[in-house]
Amino acid sequence: MGSVNVALLGFGTVGSGVYELIEREQKRLSESLSGSINIVAVLVKDDSIKRNVPNDVLVTSNIDDILAQPVDVVVDAIVGVEPAFTYLCKAIDQGCHIITANKEMFAYKGFELKEKAKEHRVAVHYEATVAGGVPVIRTISQLISVNKVVHVEAILNGTSNYILSEMRNKQIDLNTALQGAQQLGYAEADPTNDIEGFDAFYKAVILAELVTEERVNFNRVFRHGITALKQEDVVNQSLKGHRAKHIVTLTIEQGEVNVTVEPRWVTTEHPLYDVEGVNNGVLITSQYNGQLKLEGPGAGKLPTASVVVEDLVHIFRHEPKIVVN
Amino acid sequence: MGSVNVALLGFGTVGSGVYELIEREQKRLSESLSGSINIVAVLVKDDSIKRNVPNDVLVTSNIDDILAQPVDVVVDAIVGVEPAFTYLCKAIDQGCHIITANKEMFAYKGFELKEKAKEHRVAVHYEATVAGGVPVIRTISQLISVNKVVHVEAILNGTSNYILSEMRNKQIDLNTALQGAQQLGYAEADPTNDIEGFDAFYKAVILAELVTEERVNFNRVFRHGITALKQEDVVNQSLKGHRAKHIVTLTIEQGEVNVTVEPRWVTTEHPLYDVEGVNNGVLITSQYNGQLKLEGPGAGKLPTASVVVEDLVHIFRHEPKIVVN
Repeated sequence: MGSVNVALLGFGTVGSGVYELIEREQKRLSESLSGSINIVAVLVKDDSIKRNVPNDVLVTSNIDDILAQPVDVVVDAIVGVEPAFTYLCKAIDQGCHIITANKEMFAYKGFELKEKAKEHRVAVHYEATVAGGVPVIRTISQLISVNKVVHVEAILNGTSNYILSEMRNKQIDLNTALQGAQQLGYAEADPTNDIEGFDAFYKAVILAELVTEERVNFNRVFRHGITALKQEDVVNQSLKGHRAKHIVTLTIEQGEVNVTVEPRWVTTEHPLYDVEGVNNGVLITSQYNGQLKLEGPGAGKLPTASVVVEDLVHIFRHEPKIVVN
Repeated sequence: MGSVNVALLGFGTVGSGVYELIEREQKRLSESLSGSINIVAVLVKDDSIKRNVPNDVLVTSNIDDILAQPVDVVVDAIVGVEPAFTYLCKAIDQGCHIITANKEMFAYKGFELKEKAKEHRVAVHYEATVAGGVPVIRTISQLISVNKVVHVEAILNGTSNYILSEMRNKQIDLNTALQGAQQLGYAEADPTNDIEGFDAFYKAVILAELVTEERVNFNRVFRHGITALKQEDVVNQSLKGHRAKHIVTLTIEQGEVNVTVEPRWVTTEHPLYDVEGVNNGVLITSQYNGQLKLEGPGAGKLPTASVVVEDLVHIFRHEPKIVVN
């Protein structure tokens, strides 16, 4: 195999993490791929700022200049639906494969992107959109090649989960716990996305569309964040062995999916009871394979960058020649 | 894509499970593969017994008759190193892909089979050899394309784990718990493999060779089963919040792997504390991705058959055309 040329859209936490990981692990990656991975271009909002990349890497704010390069894969590490969606459509039209970590965009436009990619015979990978470093997309994709997935329950927002753990353990209120999360970099300056359940909602939609292979009707998704939870309830319930967890639930019956995103009280018997702090946890129940539980880091620069680069290897890995009669 | 022709070696629990699943899920599989899966031949020990398969499926005890068919993949659902290893070598020589659920064979001969398959440019998949329905092989394979795996801790023998759970919960001795496990079909008539730790040892070797990509020196693997554990210790320690778990530990330092297979006391803080009954649990710590936990059914006809058929889809799934400059 020759080399793989990558264009990176966005150079924030995830984008720069992907850049660093590819540079650091060039040797390991070359062995997996029998060829090297070259980052040929980086799209930034402001191209007047000097970035820490070699001179032969094009740094620009113009997508057309990026796509004028010989690019095999576009990695989307931007936040928000636009301009990311328009850029990815252009890239697909040009025959590029797509890897995205952009959950809001993929919740709204993932179904369309997957259809478009199928027409153009390119790959779309999106492991990093759900549960950070936990390989939930790949696990479900593999399961549904043989099984029906009938139920999913998951903690998909590490920030909310951290806040709830802190409220209980330190007996503090939501705002104090939130400030702590912000100081540690677990929460944004504007925490709405996390504490009102939008982030978990995006991930719920992405999982629901993966499991059913149909578009989800957003209006039918019940969404509540953690803001209505009172400190005294969190503390009092914990004395009875109950914990508040912000849980995404997918129930699939006769091909129809029911999605809820809401705080729930769980007992010690519940497999998500022990998923604490910024971890994410996912329970997947399928027809033949019973209940699988996956747990791990739900966010973070390196775990997220790692699954993006794993997606990259997955597309180009040297597989044995398939002989079919 | 055309159709995929499969030969099944062995028609016991796993073999017949694979057969049933492929028959039942023909429609779903055809969609995943854009083609059908046909079981063309089944190898049995005694071909005078009438099997519940259609007349156009060759049922024979002769491997050469099997391989004289137009076969694309051989599924090994036999137990033990030989004759399985010899049969699989013949199949690879003929250009067949291999899927195996045979852990003893793969522990002893997996390294050699993988090398041979590479030379012949065919695939070898073995998800079913470790942790039943829990996709640990695939998860680690994917991780190591980018990360170093530095530590693995796992409960890989459901029978031992069930016996230890029962000894603690019902305050019964090992023999009584073992009889219960045998009645439920969780343990064989000869339980040596499970309770002396051989089954977990095979799986530990398979994981160690996957993680290091080197042959494991069997003499350096420390193996103890659960038979030395006393009922009173299991009960008394549980009062202090400690549980006995039979744990496989891989520690990888500077490319060298250290493997132990032994019962250990774990506290409520340990992520394997809650893996109970016949479940398996695996903790994988890697360089960039922190600690992942996978948990699920460690055995059983359908979970095991499901991952075998998932391996089959993985080999032949229609992937988009890869355009590389």
